[in-house]
Amino acid sequence: MRVTIADIARLAGVSKATVSRVLNGRPDVDQATQARIQEIMAETGYVPSARAVGLASGRSRTVGVLAPSLHTPWMPELLQGVADGLAPTGYGLLLHAAAGDGPALERFAASVRAHAVDGVLAVDPGEAVAELRELHDHGLPVVVVETGGRPSGLPSVGADYPGGGAGAADLLLAAGRLRIAMITGPAADGFGNACAEGFTDRLTGTGAVLRASHVTEADGSEQGGYDAVQRLLRARLFFDGLFVHGDAMAAGALRALYESGRQVPGEVAVVGLGDVAPAAYTSPPLTTVRVPWAELGAAAARDLVTRLDGGRPAAPAAPLATTLVVRGSTPPVGRIPGQRSRRVRAEQLPAIAVAAPFPEPVPER
Amino acid sequence: MRVTIADIARLAGVSKATVSRVLNGRPDVDQATQARIQEIMAETGYVPSARAVGLASGRSRTVGVLAPSLHTPWMPELLQGVADGLAPTGYGLLLHAAAGDGPALERFAASVRAHAVDGVLAVDPGEAVAELRELHDHGLPVVVVETGGRPSGLPSVGADYPGGGAGAADLLLAAGRLRIAMITGPAADGFGNACAEGFTDRLTGTGAVLRASHVTEADGSEQGGYDAVQRLLRARLFFDGLFVHGDAMAAGALRALYESGRQVPGEVAVVGLGDVAPAAYTSPPLTTVRVPWAELGAAAARDLVTRLDGGRPAAPAAPLATTLVVRGSTPPVGRIPGQRSRRVRAEQLPAIAVAAPFPEPVPER
Repeated sequence: MRVTIADIARLAGVSKATVSRVLNGRPDVDQATQARIQEIMAETGYVPSARAVGLASGRSRTVGVLAPSLHTPWMPELLQGVADGLAPTGYGLLLHAAAGDGPALERFAASVRAHAVDGVLAVDPGEAVAELRELHDHGLPVVVVETGGRPSGLPSVGADYPGGGAGAADLLLAAGRLRIAMITGPAADGFGNACAEGFTDRLTGTGAVLRASHVTEADGSEQGGYDAVQRLLRARLFFDGLFVHGDAMAAGALRALYESGRQVPGEVAVVGLGDVAPAAYTSPPLTTVRVPWAELGAAAARDLVTRLDGGRPAAPAAPLATTLVVRGSTPPVGRIPGQRSRRVRAEQLPAIAVAAPFPEPVPER
Repeated sequence: MRVTIADIARLAGVSKATVSRVLNGRPDVDQATQARIQEIMAETGYVPSARAVGLASGRSRTVGVLAPSLHTPWMPELLQGVADGLAPTGYGLLLHAAAGDGPALERFAASVRAHAVDGVLAVDPGEAVAELRELHDHGLPVVVVETGGRPSGLPSVGADYPGGGAGAADLLLAAGRLRIAMITGPAADGFGNACAEGFTDRLTGTGAVLRASHVTEADGSEQGGYDAVQRLLRARLFFDGLFVHGDAMAAGALRALYESGRQVPGEVAVVGLGDVAPAAYTSPPLTTVRVPWAELGAAAARDLVTRLDGGRPAAPAAPLATTLVVRGSTPPVGRIPGQRSRRVRAEQLPAIAVAAPFPEPVPER
């Protein structure tokens, strides 16, 4: 019942080899024959077998996607972007959700060696980067979604993480905050580190102060953010602005501030990073630096497919812009100096906690 | 540099066809030769090309996963379960994140017709179920993760959704709640509907009342849940227990209750459904019915691989159990009658909002 390559050959009055050459886009078939064969394929609803096309072309028409755990809060949005970017190209998406373990990386490497994929799109590859570089040097197209860590030296797309940090600083400055604290993620979190760079650069020379004593590290979790604020408060450190390198940690920070009786954003303005799941649901809803996860995934997919289809690799793309999403954990501000060209999106989610009026600056305790 | 099938044949002193027969597990190679070939493969680190094995065996060693949008809050956890379930089997995961659109389904069907996958694991297939049934009837192994809607009639795994609803009812009853309201998802949400069945069944004959006036539909979003509670309050309906068919909607419901001045859980106890991202971050943190998403994905993957590898399909598996995750949106209760055998997990997340003492029952306004 299924239409085969033999049926097409018979109907077109040519050999199966000729049909195969057309399927694989070989130039050595005259145009009239090619047109006739393509017409017959369309009429009969023939779908070439992926294996038949792949074998002749030496390609699988499949892209391997190497991702850390899907539990990473921003991964689903990024992966949906990859899927949407690949969809119109006809390339399949072979997913390796490595969850960071060694055996999964081994399976991934075996799948690549077995020619199961034509190219690789790697998200935040971490320790797999050496393997990827070797594959790339042997001619396998590879594109990396950089998440702010040490550059992989491979073709990549990324966002303007320092710009996102600078935006967070601008927002706190516009709100008149001068004593700043920062909760970083684990040291390996390149994404947060890159933002921190832009954040501290922007504070320099403004009169706002971010002391080393006011920077504390947490493990990325809600509880980690909660504990971090408790450490700052136990040390009797004063701060009226807080930049947290992850929305889950920021949710925990808000909880600890609430329990301590601090008004947010009146006494402490809080800015998160990522704009992932908990951000809109905290009390008050979290102001945060949005990273365009879906756009990053789609851009990487498009770049990889261009390479696979023999197009000129795009010139290194400019990092994608981040956006400030202003919700209730920072006071309402007008135009933000230094952010003139950046879109500031104020969401209409009403804050649950009502902001107290801004307090007078208080001397450090 | 790559070891090829020709190298193995030369080293073993046999033909390439013999090596291929061993690769594909054919019985017509004598055991000594087979052992010698396998030893040489191991020594040389030969990795058979997926295409070479697949061509000879007529199989791609790949499973197609058809999923609705990855933005569905529980999808990442389920998909990670599928990936983890497939990982040790050596099957690849070809992801079709359909995002519910027609063209994506077309591409999925074409990929199946092109023999790119050996079997299909479909999550909540919706309108694709007719296509899946036809593929299944033509011999393609298919396993569906049922999410509570109309049964697909295909091999499937699912959770005890009515049992989850019954658990929510038991919890509200144990907290002494007698005037119950319910916010349902869109009518097509089988998952919520199946839970509602267990919920209303359990309330029957208990003295607790769930009137039709107290049931209102929302669109699954946070804002939808917020609007739904506002409708109930504007209608001046009294309720002291609320079951919401989704955690995002429940987060909105909590916001609306807070704004109206109602104490949660003192005046209104709220139970959500799903245990997905916002649940632990709301104020107070949300008590909810946890569906074992990752376990569902892994169970479906294992079932499908058993079928692909020619094993006896497992007997229809019992639905996986749901769990009550008790956080701050319901009052602390001891042992819950009717839930003796069900694990009730009380998380140690302190509630942000402090519960008021239980109010005296109030006559309906």
